[in-house]
Amino acid sequence: MNAVAAARLTGLDWGSTSLRAYLIGADGEVLAERSAASAALGASTLSGADAFAAALAQIRGDWDAQLPLLACGMVGARHGWLEAPYAPCPAGAGELAAKTVQVPGGPRIVPGLICETGGVPDVMRGEETQILGALQRHPELADAACIVLPGTHSKWARVEDGRVTGFATHMTGELYALLRRQSVLARLMPEDDPAAPAAFEAGVDAARDGGDAGLAHQLFAVRTLGLTEQRAAAELPDYLSGLLIGHELLAGLLRPIDGRLAIVAEPALGARYARALARFGVANPLLLGNTAVAGLVCVAREMGWIE
Amino acid sequence: MNAVAAARLTGLDWGSTSLRAYLIGADGEVLAERSAASAALGASTLSGADAFAAALAQIRGDWDAQLPLLACGMVGARHGWLEAPYAPCPAGAGELAAKTVQVPGGPRIVPGLICETGGVPDVMRGEETQILGALQRHPELADAACIVLPGTHSKWARVEDGRVTGFATHMTGELYALLRRQSVLARLMPEDDPAAPAAFEAGVDAARDGGDAGLAHQLFAVRTLGLTEQRAAAELPDYLSGLLIGHELLAGLLRPIDGRLAIVAEPALGARYARALARFGVANPLLLGNTAVAGLVCVAREMGWIE
Repeated sequence: MNAVAAARLTGLDWGSTSLRAYLIGADGEVLAERSAASAALGASTLSGADAFAAALAQIRGDWDAQLPLLACGMVGARHGWLEAPYAPCPAGAGELAAKTVQVPGGPRIVPGLICETGGVPDVMRGEETQILGALQRHPELADAACIVLPGTHSKWARVEDGRVTGFATHMTGELYALLRRQSVLARLMPEDDPAAPAAFEAGVDAARDGGDAGLAHQLFAVRTLGLTEQRAAAELPDYLSGLLIGHELLAGLLRPIDGRLAIVAEPALGARYARALARFGVANPLLLGNTAVAGLVCVAREMGWIE
Repeated sequence: MNAVAAARLTGLDWGSTSLRAYLIGADGEVLAERSAASAALGASTLSGADAFAAALAQIRGDWDAQLPLLACGMVGARHGWLEAPYAPCPAGAGELAAKTVQVPGGPRIVPGLICETGGVPDVMRGEETQILGALQRHPELADAACIVLPGTHSKWARVEDGRVTGFATHMTGELYALLRRQSVLARLMPEDDPAAPAAFEAGVDAARDGGDAGLAHQLFAVRTLGLTEQRAAAELPDYLSGLLIGHELLAGLLRPIDGRLAIVAEPALGARYARALARFGVANPLLLGNTAVAGLVCVAREMGWIE
């Protein structure tokens, strides 16, 4: 029997602009893996059940179509294949498995999470599965941890006893993209994004030490430092990045962290956050790559689909 | 002698996307006024001395071309008609008049202001003239005041003894425009901008009471309040506006204000800021419209051009 024939489950990490498929064995091991080559198979591009079904058939290719399917991410959003209503915090693998939703002729979908702070809701979809994966790979995180998932909409989640107790979203990546390319700040910047580590750290430090002057004020320094030639054009993108990430850390670290801080991100972005955290005196965060498949395995196990 | 024949000076309020011309008499009175009908005569659209000269000729029309010309605003920026280097703070009418720059065959240009806080520069260009105008119209402000000029790049200036001692820029208006139209927050909003005063105040209050959670975090509530239908789509633009203006106030009011707070803005925007200030316990700010021409008169007087 070859590896693929031993498969028990197909896992789908289906984001707004990405789709990854995993063939998973009886012990939760990954037997094979495929990524969509373009964003055209992402959940925010597709519209209607037929389009999702066709995208699934395309990425699955010659894999066994009879295997159970488990998906996480924006595929379960209101404009995804089928809406999987958010599970309320606190929630762990058990609560998430219990609220999965079955698409007729399609995958079972892991719900996102919702929490509320001072009457204001916050949501995540896809990151809950990555968090489960992080806990599975590093069981010492389950007792108490802060798990940071940087990105377009960064998430800071608090974990206690294996469950997410609450979290906060920061629009850091989206603000960077808008300000970097479409604001007055873009005018003094080069086309490319040269690495400027000292400027990045200066931006982080400015947020750390002077953040109460307001993000909307400190952002203007990207322009004035360029205008007055105190910073070269090539330094401005990373100074902007440092300011934005610094403000995220200022808010995220406001409440003391119980247990360890872990970062779940592709390596370059994880390293960037680790450098910023060091400026705030937080040393040696645990750096993890994409943990979505490990999280899908957790949920599948919870449902009894695999051992 | 008719009014126009009594003119002693032509004043130009020449911003990035606007151009206004004033015919000014011997006592500083405005005898006639003209506005460019389109942004095509704005300083950021024009390129090269010939284009500026043609725009000047167009707005001046049949007015006496022999009159002295005094201009303020982005016309004096690096990519304007001729760069008028920033005057350092503290500065009042005397310092600004001393640093005006003469365009050959064109106007004399009032410089902008530069200040520095913790090693980081800040700049304004055009607002310094509006501040002089505010002091001229309300001399009680000259002793000590905080003058707020809301807009794309809002300015908060502190005045002592008739001079601007320092100021801070907040990119509030630009952030609103980017987030309102081009971010994920725009997706749940209607095309138009319906007035939603209660939602605006809720946004201001959220910033006031929970601002330490970070602007980039609180912005995401515009999405989640819409997603969870706690706020109607029509309320979201004003909730966003309230959040952004609230964060500006949080930073601007951090240092206690000596003297009175004045707002220089077109009436609807001034009233919006006054409503937000009331939520912060600052009652009855002085509301002023465009004071640029009064400021040009101050500088012209300082130079001995008029009485």
